[in-house]
Amino acid sequence: MNEPRFGAPGRVKEVTSLSNPLVKDIKALSLKKFRDQQNAFLAEGLKLVIDALELGWTIRTLVFAKTALGNPAVEKVAARTVAAGGTVLEVSEKVLTAITRRDNPQVVVGVFAQQTLALKDVAPRGDDVWVALDRVRDPGNLGTIIRTVDAVGAKGVILIGDCTDAFSIETVRATMGSIFAVPVARATTDAFMAWRKGFGGLVAGTHLKGAVDYRTVDFTGKPVLLLMGNEQQGLPEDLAASCDQLVKIPQAGRADSLNLAVATGVMLFEIRRGALALTSGTNA
Amino acid sequence: MNEPRFGAPGRVKEVTSLSNPLVKDIKALSLKKFRDQQNAFLAEGLKLVIDALELGWTIRTLVFAKTALGNPAVEKVAARTVAAGGTVLEVSEKVLTAITRRDNPQVVVGVFAQQTLALKDVAPRGDDVWVALDRVRDPGNLGTIIRTVDAVGAKGVILIGDCTDAFSIETVRATMGSIFAVPVARATTDAFMAWRKGFGGLVAGTHLKGAVDYRTVDFTGKPVLLLMGNEQQGLPEDLAASCDQLVKIPQAGRADSLNLAVATGVMLFEIRRGALALTSGTNA
Repeated sequence: MNEPRFGAPGRVKEVTSLSNPLVKDIKALSLKKFRDQQNAFLAEGLKLVIDALELGWTIRTLVFAKTALGNPAVEKVAARTVAAGGTVLEVSEKVLTAITRRDNPQVVVGVFAQQTLALKDVAPRGDDVWVALDRVRDPGNLGTIIRTVDAVGAKGVILIGDCTDAFSIETVRATMGSIFAVPVARATTDAFMAWRKGFGGLVAGTHLKGAVDYRTVDFTGKPVLLLMGNEQQGLPEDLAASCDQLVKIPQAGRADSLNLAVATGVMLFEIRRGALALTSGTNA
Repeated sequence: MNEPRFGAPGRVKEVTSLSNPLVKDIKALSLKKFRDQQNAFLAEGLKLVIDALELGWTIRTLVFAKTALGNPAVEKVAARTVAAGGTVLEVSEKVLTAITRRDNPQVVVGVFAQQTLALKDVAPRGDDVWVALDRVRDPGNLGTIIRTVDAVGAKGVILIGDCTDAFSIETVRATMGSIFAVPVARATTDAFMAWRKGFGGLVAGTHLKGAVDYRTVDFTGKPVLLLMGNEQQGLPEDLAASCDQLVKIPQAGRADSLNLAVATGVMLFEIRRGALALTSGTNA
């Protein structure tokens, strides 16, 4: 009876029930098992969804709150979702709260297809900087590191071994949208070691045994891979041995007392120290 | 019938019930209201509790799991708690899980009296570095910043306005023990502004309008106060105007894309760049 919205009858559904099968599938994305099964993940917020579409990510479902009806930006994204073959769900706030597991949810949520890079396609050149993380545990740390990689203009992240999921809602939230801008590759330790043999740049790792001040290394003129251990144990011996340089960040207090995301940030700003400059008149 | 443990009959209690009034008081510490009422907070882990005692913090109650009985370090801390007039609770894992709201809890938890510094007693001198945070929201960020302050050898933190609580369990966790080493002062914006007038050092703030590269400022030879805005809005106009220097961290990507704890870490390592050096043969 209503005029079909966004030019696509049947592709826009009003849903208020938590037991709707489409909603159930989306809610299931809070578990890694179902994210992997569906090869999908959630991103919250209109700006993020728009950015993701601009960057060529495939949207499966756009979910928005009734309260967003009439917002031209939301309607444009909805039309774009339909044009891309996706589904649009207009839902109650109750449904959005259930999907995002958060009070006062964003009024727009997108379900996107996961995208990762194959390790064999990670081919740093020039002065490219990549970060490899071994068994990172905390989604906030992983998301924050992906965000920092974006901020410093590094090229991507390699996740080694059993890491926390880059596509969990907590990680995606902490990336503040950078999940769509920063390629992520996954590798076993063995696969990483094999790949590393073919990498001609500098592999630098932070390590308590590092005898070299991180500020004394020449990171310029070659690709650099920054290798960081996890929150509990730091780099294991085999990965430490694969580094060209083991460096240390000097500290005044207790040993090993930096948060992983902070340590990675401090390292990345040092590695990119010569490459980053203020551009007058812009925010870059 | 049992021999009184730790030489203090009546001060060591076995508790397995969640409705025990002592346990209820401790569980209530998950809410700021009750932390303030009791002027107390929780710290998890044997090492943290030992560090806190070494640093002179007052322990009110030591809670430990039955499984820790016989551990000499735990028994020593228990005896020390009793000697200091505190109470020792030997509890079931169920009680520990309820207190810490976490599966697989630490086997030792301490309830400590809160300690803050009065703003009037914050008197930076020499090359002291302090950090002031305006309305910081995220407990993980606040805890991580306190941890970084400790790591770089800065002197303390001033919380301006309505900040997340430095004594929440999430914040304390993220400090990894630095909550006991880093003095924290609280101030309204007005009180901070009044205090700032009497501060003779350099006040540096990061700001999108900052036209100065953070690496070009001379931070040496004077006390430095680093002033950071919150996660959503950055520094408000009045606080920005109170800065001697508004600086910017150059970024390659989108504007303002650093996590607050990472940005603060990068700033602190720059401010303390000349003061930090590797000490050979130690982890310092």
